[in-house]
Amino acid sequence: MVEHQKFMKEAIKEAKKSLKEGGIPIGAVLVENNHIIGRGHNRLLQNQSVILHGEMDCMESAGRLRGEDYQQCTLYTTLSPCTMCSGAALLYKIPRVVIGENKTLSGPEQLLRDNGVEVIDLEMEECWELLEDYIRENPETWESELERVGGETNLK
Amino acid sequence: MVEHQKFMKEAIKEAKKSLKEGGIPIGAVLVENNHIIGRGHNRLLQNQSVILHGEMDCMESAGRLRGEDYQQCTLYTTLSPCTMCSGAALLYKIPRVVIGENKTLSGPEQLLRDNGVEVIDLEMEECWELLEDYIRENPETWESELERVGGETNLK
Repeated sequence: MVEHQKFMKEAIKEAKKSLKEGGIPIGAVLVENNHIIGRGHNRLLQNQSVILHGEMDCMESAGRLRGEDYQQCTLYTTLSPCTMCSGAALLYKIPRVVIGENKTLSGPEQLLRDNGVEVIDLEMEECWELLEDYIRENPETWESELERVGGETNLK
Repeated sequence: MVEHQKFMKEAIKEAKKSLKEGGIPIGAVLVENNHIIGRGHNRLLQNQSVILHGEMDCMESAGRLRGEDYQQCTLYTTLSPCTMCSGAALLYKIPRVVIGENKTLSGPEQLLRDNGVEVIDLEMEECWELLEDYIRENPETWESELERVGGETNLK
């Protein structure tokens, strides 16, 4: 668990990078055999993107790995991954996803589990506070992002 | 159905653009109220990407739409969308996905349907032949792409 928190701290550093760029503070790192091989953060605002969530940016930064590498990876993300990012983890058969918090939003964690992915929720206050502070200070931006995705996603 | 084939022809044009760039011939268009508002194609090889499938590239090209716009869109794609691209469609609550073919690979179409997305399979020979020809001519590249995702995805 200490190892998980260590890597989540790196995902938090990524979230803070986004904040400095004027973006939403959500970050991710991809870890293989205890080494960080990819890192990224939410770039929706700063890149005017609809696909660069933290997890997607992180996976893109890791480059085109072999299947046998993805299958040894753990994806750390400060916020519970949405359907798109969960789908990306499932596509590449990443066997473990470690989540900083899922109080702000919760993605399809059960879908991940149903498909053999180990999902660990660290419930780290720091992840939650970082995003919560952002939402409090930027309520209109956050509301606009929620409107864009039609509110929360509750997958069947 | 004629309308669907008309827009799928545009997705096929995108697939052919990819082929010209040395990429995998899969393409997509996003249509709102009978107008194409986004187009894209698979860029895994030409951009050394792991996230730019045709559908993702197409959605990125459409820009940051409002939720009420996404909710009136149809996503046309020459190949049945994978878990990542299906997840993106679910994230943005796109209500309809039209598929050129699902003989080469089949994504989680049932997951889309279970979540209220209308899925229409056109079973267009042209989509299948375009990709099938590519695979026949580039078997090692295709095998390498399949290895990267651990073979086909059979979601639960």
